[in-house]
Amino acid sequence: MTDAKTIALFGLGSMGFGMATSLVKAGHTVYGFDVNPAAVARFVEAGGHHGNVEDIGAQVDITVVVVLNAPQTESVLFGGNGIVQHMSAGSGIISCATMPPEFAKTLATRSMETGVHYLDAPISGGSIKAAAGKLSVMAAGTAAAFATAKPALDAMAETVFELGDEPGPGSAMKSVNQLLAGVHIAAMGEALTFGLKQGLSAEKILEVISQSAGNSWMFENRAPHVVAGDYTPHSAINIWLKDLGIVLDIAREERLAAPLAAAALQQYLVAAGTGLGAEDDAAITKVYARNAGVDLPSGG
Amino acid sequence: MTDAKTIALFGLGSMGFGMATSLVKAGHTVYGFDVNPAAVARFVEAGGHHGNVEDIGAQVDITVVVVLNAPQTESVLFGGNGIVQHMSAGSGIISCATMPPEFAKTLATRSMETGVHYLDAPISGGSIKAAAGKLSVMAAGTAAAFATAKPALDAMAETVFELGDEPGPGSAMKSVNQLLAGVHIAAMGEALTFGLKQGLSAEKILEVISQSAGNSWMFENRAPHVVAGDYTPHSAINIWLKDLGIVLDIAREERLAAPLAAAALQQYLVAAGTGLGAEDDAAITKVYARNAGVDLPSGG
Repeated sequence: MTDAKTIALFGLGSMGFGMATSLVKAGHTVYGFDVNPAAVARFVEAGGHHGNVEDIGAQVDITVVVVLNAPQTESVLFGGNGIVQHMSAGSGIISCATMPPEFAKTLATRSMETGVHYLDAPISGGSIKAAAGKLSVMAAGTAAAFATAKPALDAMAETVFELGDEPGPGSAMKSVNQLLAGVHIAAMGEALTFGLKQGLSAEKILEVISQSAGNSWMFENRAPHVVAGDYTPHSAINIWLKDLGIVLDIAREERLAAPLAAAALQQYLVAAGTGLGAEDDAAITKVYARNAGVDLPSGG
Repeated sequence: MTDAKTIALFGLGSMGFGMATSLVKAGHTVYGFDVNPAAVARFVEAGGHHGNVEDIGAQVDITVVVVLNAPQTESVLFGGNGIVQHMSAGSGIISCATMPPEFAKTLATRSMETGVHYLDAPISGGSIKAAAGKLSVMAAGTAAAFATAKPALDAMAETVFELGDEPGPGSAMKSVNQLLAGVHIAAMGEALTFGLKQGLSAEKILEVISQSAGNSWMFENRAPHVVAGDYTPHSAINIWLKDLGIVLDIAREERLAAPLAAAALQQYLVAAGTGLGAEDDAAITKVYARNAGVDLPSGG
C-alpha cells in the first residue's frame, strides 16, 4: 500500500497491544516496545517488529505512546534513551496516556523544539475495541499534528473527536470521562451490593437496571463481571488510583470540589489496600460486599 | 372495547398525569384525584373524570397510586377518606411511589385484609414516557395482583419487569435504580463543571461523553438541560432528597455503607438549601459551578 508508515508503539499492555496489532493489520511497519520482554515477543509473533530506538528512530513516521502515565510518557519520549532525539523533523507523536492537560502542553512544546508534531490524544473504549481498531480518541493538536497522525488514527480508531488546535483539551476531556467512568463503576458496586442485601439477585439487577434510567455504560459493561464472578482484569482497580488521582489533582489545582470522585477514590484505595489492586475494576464490588456482609456470585 | 375498566388514579403530577391520560386513550374510564384542583380540572379537560371515593370506590377495578411517597400512599389508600374501604374484593391496587420494601409489604397485607390485591409497582422512565404509555414498571405481587392490574399496565407501560410473587422486590429494585440515577445526575454536574473549569465547552462535553465510556442514561438525558440553560423541572431536586433519603434509610437499616449515595445527597441538600429545590434536578450543576466559580450556559 502506498501510505504504509513506519510506526513505533510504546506500551504493549491491554490497550497498546490491540492498537499495535490493528496498525499491523492496516499494513504499517510497526516496532513495539515494552518493559516486559514477553509482551514484545508476543507482538513479534503477531507480525510486529522490535529494534533499538537509536537504529529505527530516524525512519519512524509516527510514535504512538500508550504507557501508564505522564512520567512514563516523558521517559519514553525524552529520557536518556528517549525516541524524540532520534526522530526526524516532520514526524509525529500520538500521546495516549491519561495525564494532566498542562503536562500534555509541556510535552508538546518540547517535541516541537525538534520539529516533531505532538497530538494530545487520550483513548477510550477498552481492550476489545482496541484490538478491533475501533477506539475513540479525544484529540487536540495543530493541523500538522493531525495530518501526520492520520494514517495511524485511521487504523486504531472508529471515532476521532477533534477538540482543538492546540494540545490540552484532549487530556481535559479524558479527565472528564474518567471522573464519570470511575464514579460509575463504584456506583455499580454500591448499587449491586445494595440490591443483593435486599434479596434481589445479581442477574435480575443487571437485567432491569440495564433497561432503566439508572443505567450507565460502565454498569452495562462491568456488572456482568460481578454476575459471572469473573474478575480477570480487563481494566484493573489500580488504573483508578492513577486516573481518579489525576482528576482530583486537577480539581485541587482548579479549586473545584469533587465529592463524588473523592468518595469513589477512597473505595478504590480500600480495594487496593486489601489486595485487589490487580483485579478487574468490577472488584470494587467486593469492598462493598465485605463491608456489608454480602456474598457475591462466585465464578463458574 | 370489552376490557374497558374503571380506574382511579391518585396523583396527577408530572408522571401521574401522563399515566392517567394514557389510560384514557386506551379506552378506560378514569377518575383522577389530586390535592391540586387545577390538575384535576386539566385532567377532566383531557377526557378524565372526577368524583368522590365514597361514590365511585365500589365500581373501581383498579386504583393506581402515583403520589410522592409512602405516607401519601398510605393516606390515599387507608386514611380517613381512603379508597380501599370502598373497593370491592377482587379489585386491585397498583402502587407506584418509591418507598421502602418493608412499607410496601405492610400496605399489601392491609389491602388483602379486605380482598384487594396489591401490586408493588414502582415506575421508571420520566414524564415523556409516562405520557406516551411507555414506562418501565418494576413489579412484584401475587399472580392475582398481576392479573387484576394487567389492563392498566398494558396502557401505561412498555416494559413490566416481574420481580417476584410477593410485594417488596419491586420497591427494592426501584431503590437500586434510584441510588444509581441520583448518583449519576450529581456526577454529571460534577463532571460538566470540571470540564468547563478546564476550558471545554458544555456542548462539546455532551457530544463526546455521550459517545464514550463515561456515559450514563442520566448524563445523556440531563446534560442537555445544562447546555440549554433550561432548568424547567421535569424531575425536581426535591425528589432526590426523598429518594436518596429512602435509599440511605434502607442502607442504614441493612448495615450497608453507601458513600457515593451519601455524598450525592449532600449535594442535593445544598441545592435545596440554596433555593433550587423546585428546579430541574440538572440544577445540581449550579451547586458545583457556584462552588468553583464557573459560569454555566444561560438559557436562550
